[in-house]
Amino acid sequence: MAIDKLVVYGVGLIGGSFARALKGAGAVRHVVGIDRSAAAAQRALELGIIDAVGTGPEAIADADLVLLATPVAQTGRILASLLPHLGADTIVTDAGSTKTDVAAAARAALGERAAQFVPGHPIAGRETNGPDAAIPDLYRGKKFVVTPLAENRAEDVARVTDAWQACGAIIHRLAPEEHDKVFAAVSHLPHLLAYALVDDIAKKPHADLLFQYAASGFRDFTRIAGSSPEMWRDISLANQAALLGELDAYMAQLTNLRARLAAGDGASLETVYGNAQRARRQWIEAIEAAEAPPPDTAE
Amino acid sequence: MAIDKLVVYGVGLIGGSFARALKGAGAVRHVVGIDRSAAAAQRALELGIIDAVGTGPEAIADADLVLLATPVAQTGRILASLLPHLGADTIVTDAGSTKTDVAAAARAALGERAAQFVPGHPIAGRETNGPDAAIPDLYRGKKFVVTPLAENRAEDVARVTDAWQACGAIIHRLAPEEHDKVFAAVSHLPHLLAYALVDDIAKKPHADLLFQYAASGFRDFTRIAGSSPEMWRDISLANQAALLGELDAYMAQLTNLRARLAAGDGASLETVYGNAQRARRQWIEAIEAAEAPPPDTAE
Repeated sequence: MAIDKLVVYGVGLIGGSFARALKGAGAVRHVVGIDRSAAAAQRALELGIIDAVGTGPEAIADADLVLLATPVAQTGRILASLLPHLGADTIVTDAGSTKTDVAAAARAALGERAAQFVPGHPIAGRETNGPDAAIPDLYRGKKFVVTPLAENRAEDVARVTDAWQACGAIIHRLAPEEHDKVFAAVSHLPHLLAYALVDDIAKKPHADLLFQYAASGFRDFTRIAGSSPEMWRDISLANQAALLGELDAYMAQLTNLRARLAAGDGASLETVYGNAQRARRQWIEAIEAAEAPPPDTAE
Repeated sequence: MAIDKLVVYGVGLIGGSFARALKGAGAVRHVVGIDRSAAAAQRALELGIIDAVGTGPEAIADADLVLLATPVAQTGRILASLLPHLGADTIVTDAGSTKTDVAAAARAALGERAAQFVPGHPIAGRETNGPDAAIPDLYRGKKFVVTPLAENRAEDVARVTDAWQACGAIIHRLAPEEHDKVFAAVSHLPHLLAYALVDDIAKKPHADLLFQYAASGFRDFTRIAGSSPEMWRDISLANQAALLGELDAYMAQLTNLRARLAAGDGASLETVYGNAQRARRQWIEAIEAAEAPPPDTAE
């Protein structure tokens, strides 16, 4: 058994699916769940996601692995609470969407024992949440990005990536700062843009008329604006610098497109639209090939 | 039989589905299809979407109804070619995504016989195209927006809306200018924004790295950037004034959000994100209720 004792902070979609996947793979013996909602922890126990409910940080004693599946802004506080109970052989990891701030919070909270914290980010999610949303296949064929600290030992990084690999994830590795620049462009900016559009429309005097005619294209374009405002507030602030950089680049692009449109320059608009269509098609083909599960794990 | 002879210009997804739906409803006796692609017209004939291939505008002689399912920029030229063959009892309609330009093109091409042209816009579509993509249910439970000209007779407007109703569509009515303002906000602007984002990312030196980590949220956000660049070039230019207005409002919104983000004002960001999430949830609930097919047409 690769992991004798796992402690999961947050037993919802992300943490619960991690526990379910490891159990399904026979890669963990005993799972303790901790959640700010006692009802959620109880539900996770009923569903067999966890084997016991932990009531506080003392639950991590003797754990091999601790996963923080909690909002990124809470990482520092939780790590500080864990420190007095952190055994020499326990590794802590997380699943947050930003990594530079998490790395800084770990160093501030854990000091020289930050080497025991290996940050990471599983690139998977759904619109649902809570223990009932947790499924064993959430991570199968999806990416897990490990963003090690310079002070992490290679064997500790491997303990974390081995666990995610047991969940079916494909392991990638980026520096925390590199991670945050990448996700500012392909995730954090699109969320901000989608929220901005829906709020912009909702504030117009004829919003009801507009929403009446919004159709499936609008629905897909704004799906990410259905995400948790609290979570995305935290992510926006945690990745402020990179997000501002991407937003500025995008606004410059819009200014450019506006000039082409105002000039009635159809050929030039079509070039931009065509470049986007082509790039997206190539990406879809590439990502579908990369995300296809390997034959021996196909279900 | 409500329609004895129908002529469809463009036998792809939009025109082909219209013909299929009317045939399925027993609402048309004879369908003639005209397409700039001879192969597409032949394929539509093989599939039984049309009963005959028309080779030119003389095919509209004795037609009850003519549907133009062609790019909006071609509307004026096609209408001018129809005029010498336009019988006194023939009504022409269209399916274009912009209506002010179509109304102007109709008046310029048809002169005092513009009364026989009833512009409209079915709010339905898919990523696929061509005769093989045409399905009888494309319009079922979806909106058809009729945007009559002042010179249209009420009974002629009713002939067009009756046909779309027979396809299962829910009839809405807007003035052409009102239509274009609404769709600039909920459709044309989102398309421009999605194209702009994908092109922006594709032009960055590390585009490959970025696309490698783009996931399902990005996929949905940019789905509309997979649409035809030619078609959206035409729509952007046809609805230039309204689209510029919406783009300016959106850029002002981004400037505002940028200031909140730069100031680290999390509460204020969360207000915008929360307002958007709430508005979108209410919209989804309302549109799902409105688009549910009535019980007697459920399949």
